[in-house]
Amino acid sequence: MADADFEYLPRAEATPEVESGGAKAPLDLSHHFSRVTKNRKESSIKSFYKYFQIAGIGNLAGGLPNAAFFPYDTLEAQIAQPERFKPTPNDPVDPGKVANRFGGLSLGKTHHDVTAPSHLTVPHASSVTNPLQKIDLTSALQYGLAQGYPPLYSFLRQFTRENLHPNVPYAGGPEIILTVGSTDGLAKTVEALSNIWSEERDWIREREGILCEEFAYMNAVQTCRPRGLNVVPVKIDFEGMLPGGKGGLEDVLANWDESKGKRPHLMYTVTIGQNPTSGTLSVKRRKELYAICSKYDVIIIEDDPYWYLQFPSAVGKEAEARGLATPRAEEPHKFENSSGFPFLDSLVPSYLNVDYDGRVVRLDTFSKTVAPGCRLGWITTQPAIVERILRITESSTQQPSGFVQSMVAELLMGPQPAVSEFAKKSKADQLTFTGWKVDGWVRWLAGLRGQYERRMNRMCDILESNRYQLKQGTPTKSSESDWAVISKTEMYNFDWPRAGMFVWIQMFFDTHPLAKEVDGPTLSQSFWVFLTRKPYLILLAPGAIFSPTPEIMAEKGWQYFRACFAAVSEEEIERCSQGFADGVKGFWLIKDKKDLPSVEDDIEAAQEGLMDLGMNMAC
Amino acid sequence: MADADFEYLPRAEATPEVESGGAKAPLDLSHHFSRVTKNRKESSIKSFYKYFQIAGIGNLAGGLPNAAFFPYDTLEAQIAQPERFKPTPNDPVDPGKVANRFGGLSLGKTHHDVTAPSHLTVPHASSVTNPLQKIDLTSALQYGLAQGYPPLYSFLRQFTRENLHPNVPYAGGPEIILTVGSTDGLAKTVEALSNIWSEERDWIREREGILCEEFAYMNAVQTCRPRGLNVVPVKIDFEGMLPGGKGGLEDVLANWDESKGKRPHLMYTVTIGQNPTSGTLSVKRRKELYAICSKYDVIIIEDDPYWYLQFPSAVGKEAEARGLATPRAEEPHKFENSSGFPFLDSLVPSYLNVDYDGRVVRLDTFSKTVAPGCRLGWITTQPAIVERILRITESSTQQPSGFVQSMVAELLMGPQPAVSEFAKKSKADQLTFTGWKVDGWVRWLAGLRGQYERRMNRMCDILESNRYQLKQGTPTKSSESDWAVISKTEMYNFDWPRAGMFVWIQMFFDTHPLAKEVDGPTLSQSFWVFLTRKPYLILLAPGAIFSPTPEIMAEKGWQYFRACFAAVSEEEIERCSQGFADGVKGFWLIKDKKDLPSVEDDIEAAQEGLMDLGMNMAC
Repeated sequence: MADADFEYLPRAEATPEVESGGAKAPLDLSHHFSRVTKNRKESSIKSFYKYFQIAGIGNLAGGLPNAAFFPYDTLEAQIAQPERFKPTPNDPVDPGKVANRFGGLSLGKTHHDVTAPSHLTVPHASSVTNPLQKIDLTSALQYGLAQGYPPLYSFLRQFTRENLHPNVPYAGGPEIILTVGSTDGLAKTVEALSNIWSEERDWIREREGILCEEFAYMNAVQTCRPRGLNVVPVKIDFEGMLPGGKGGLEDVLANWDESKGKRPHLMYTVTIGQNPTSGTLSVKRRKELYAICSKYDVIIIEDDPYWYLQFPSAVGKEAEARGLATPRAEEPHKFENSSGFPFLDSLVPSYLNVDYDGRVVRLDTFSKTVAPGCRLGWITTQPAIVERILRITESSTQQPSGFVQSMVAELLMGPQPAVSEFAKKSKADQLTFTGWKVDGWVRWLAGLRGQYERRMNRMCDILESNRYQLKQGTPTKSSESDWAVISKTEMYNFDWPRAGMFVWIQMFFDTHPLAKEVDGPTLSQSFWVFLTRKPYLILLAPGAIFSPTPEIMAEKGWQYFRACFAAVSEEEIERCSQGFADGVKGFWLIKDKKDLPSVEDDIEAAQEGLMDLGMNMAC
Repeated sequence: MADADFEYLPRAEATPEVESGGAKAPLDLSHHFSRVTKNRKESSIKSFYKYFQIAGIGNLAGGLPNAAFFPYDTLEAQIAQPERFKPTPNDPVDPGKVANRFGGLSLGKTHHDVTAPSHLTVPHASSVTNPLQKIDLTSALQYGLAQGYPPLYSFLRQFTRENLHPNVPYAGGPEIILTVGSTDGLAKTVEALSNIWSEERDWIREREGILCEEFAYMNAVQTCRPRGLNVVPVKIDFEGMLPGGKGGLEDVLANWDESKGKRPHLMYTVTIGQNPTSGTLSVKRRKELYAICSKYDVIIIEDDPYWYLQFPSAVGKEAEARGLATPRAEEPHKFENSSGFPFLDSLVPSYLNVDYDGRVVRLDTFSKTVAPGCRLGWITTQPAIVERILRITESSTQQPSGFVQSMVAELLMGPQPAVSEFAKKSKADQLTFTGWKVDGWVRWLAGLRGQYERRMNRMCDILESNRYQLKQGTPTKSSESDWAVISKTEMYNFDWPRAGMFVWIQMFFDTHPLAKEVDGPTLSQSFWVFLTRKPYLILLAPGAIFSPTPEIMAEKGWQYFRACFAAVSEEEIERCSQGFADGVKGFWLIKDKKDLPSVEDDIEAAQEGLMDLGMNMAC
């Protein structure tokens, strides 16, 4: 209870109800709260604080164990400097220099000082008195506040409001709450904003629904299914959801068939480097889609783990590879306030920037920027929604682990002025640790983006140059010269991803020699098995597992495969990309049905198993 | 995905359906699964594994970020040796020796070597191949399996089955799954086993219910309230729930009034060092209560964070202090298999030991044995229930943080044979780290128990000697001698806690001089405020916030206060206990209503605020 004087910030009433500087307060969206969420009580904590804060009070009221009995005297780590990886644009890293196991440049006392680790220490007890700056185990490993560990919470809140989204249009701006990762953030958001529906006992008219992309990150969508929510796909193009046209957002909502349940009031969307399609939604498109959501009172759940991984080189390289003119660069969006960092300003911004109503709930995570095992993220939305999610958090996860909260706080905020004796020990063999601060964090993100962008380019280069099957026809003798017909068959196509971790490959099984004898879905399954065999040995994620409905799966899910360039090592990228290309070539050479790898009965279960594994593994 | 060859253990079908060695399989309790839980799909993961395990497969299917890009090169810590604290029985620690901030004996290079920390390192990559022994950041900070980090999961599973509960009667024994703490464990258990009910739309006959102690850990019970569950108290004595008698378990269930909803099918219970009463349930009582639960098909959720903190000295010291004969020691329970440790064998065992049906869901946590900030615990129950909770976990918390999982795994399992270059660095200034192993863990628990037991004794000693107000009447002159009447007023009473962290104090406000003018509840609130004032400066938890119903609060909740001897420092125990005693004395001297501290309007909100704070802080 070291945090007694820490102001308990995220309260519904924190939002000014009056206009301030022309900005309006966010809309009251409490009609969307689920029945269970409405039942949760308001907190009475403020009334209690005056007793808690009495000077010298002996607290026998709490039920805390004693911090003196924690077996961890310190937490420490060897950590990277923010400059470890080169940002974009630059040349691909020389493979010879990345032989060490960190995949970056060489470690230790070389002239590449930026790649050496430094030593971080979270002391057992810090003498810092401001709880927003105090990082120690006595506070971090004790019970804490559901909004997050005060120093980390305050760092992220400021970073979110001033650097990530400095242009949120509603009065007072957004509030945040920490989560144990975005899957948890989504689960809590869906719990706060939707009611459970059961086919066997509830009226169909009560069934609620959630919109998602036509190909979607199904592990997220699966969160909604057991609750009985209608999962309603919206047609997409290479950017993401389409506002107009048949199957576009306006069409789905305007022509909603009430006999299927209520018109969906939730949207789940990944807007940058969408999983699996890598779609990246422009500001213009966001405005169009947002206007429709506003019209139909839809809450937008924006899940953007790949936000920092936007690849400016993709457009140009794709054009170059295909011999096309490089498209004119899009006009950069202009908002009133800068993030303070050219890197962040250059990124396509969140839906929050056009959120006049306060209907965007954004999920952020450290999974792709630090590590998935953190189980650490945060939700950004209007204060009244954060307040309800806070109450859900209090009776479920309580708070993210203090181990990760203190380690990440220390990483970002650096050693505080007063450090314990432990941290003062001289560590001759390592650099003195200085926290990354906001500057370092942004630099780290830019370096990560560079690493992933180089991998993306490497994979796409190889995939690009193997899209066609070139076949020489029977040579024809003419009197004049020998000549032959070269036929060019397009076996697959893809967009160079503008962001994210995936290449979304559309296979043209109709160009396969057996296309007339074997149906597409069977060819697709056979192809998937074929790739897993020698000499190719490649495992891809089949489009089927990203299809939100059986109709989409049957119509076109089988035409697509998702290849991830993030997980495998730098060298494996080459081997695997070439393996894929060779596999396609090999598969297109099969002319006899009997030579197709047989598709076993359990292939669908096996592919679904990949998705089940992905429930944990963001597959 | 380093854990490809890790067998995915907790499956419903893992339970043998046939009898083995006379033991029966646990009952099928799936009729208790909630509608949402039933809707969750079975996992297809096994069908997929054969592809995943192909030697040399290039995995482009996953969506994992690259472990080479994690900014943490190592995680390290200074950790205690298991022998840091003295076990029970022993003499109270000399206060002079506990002046350092760890509250134990002095640290560093003294002759008390057992109190010096040693240095633990989790390497970035370990060359250990067995995933059940491999502890490194490449695996721990990656996406992982919902059941838990394989080495930690396997350690805890074995510890649970062989050491903690070696006598679970059903065939195949229990399964475990890791949680992000017991609040999370409870939330998932309640989600798995209960349906949401809303007053405004559902029939009263559909309303489900949960049994709890007459005074209960309300933060847990609050988890159930927003779901619409009936919270149904059962009468208790100093042990815990009463099987028979009016308001006892049989009475509540046999005479259930269907007009209030369904007969409760869940029980929430803290059986050791119950919060707030410190009740500790004997084996005999467990058997009686279990038989009733079996008869009425009630699932027992046993939440026992204080299990290790059983205090053998309490019975004798209480008797001694009150001049009573020391009660004959209870006959120790005898089960077939020993835990392998006299310390564990001596503890009152879990309900799991009499769980013939498989209807016990036990919640364990590291909050009281390592630190609350871990947010780490586990559920132990029959495999079919674990399997459903696993599916809930996959789409919510996914797994506990890899930071804490790897650090605790390393603490418990020690450095594995192959360590990274980082761990090999000589650390001249500290002891070489050896993992605690099961022996060390049990020794640590015994030391913790010793620390808390000494505090308990210290507080109870002081409270005991101040229970009575001694008042000399007007001296009477007689011919023979001067004499006076000494009146002895009992102001409060309590049982010396047999376990846990709390003294549960019953105040006798009817003995207060103002009892005829001021009603008990008002005196109680006034007393609470009085204690927070100078010179007493004591904050207690009022019984009202542990009252599950308004009736209990009105009838007797106001008579009780809970004092926690765990959180404050060794010196504060004395100061606070004496402060309480002096405060009571001072309050009983108030003879004029006008001198009572006024109870402000917001007193109930303030006291509830304490509970709200407790939502995070186990108050």
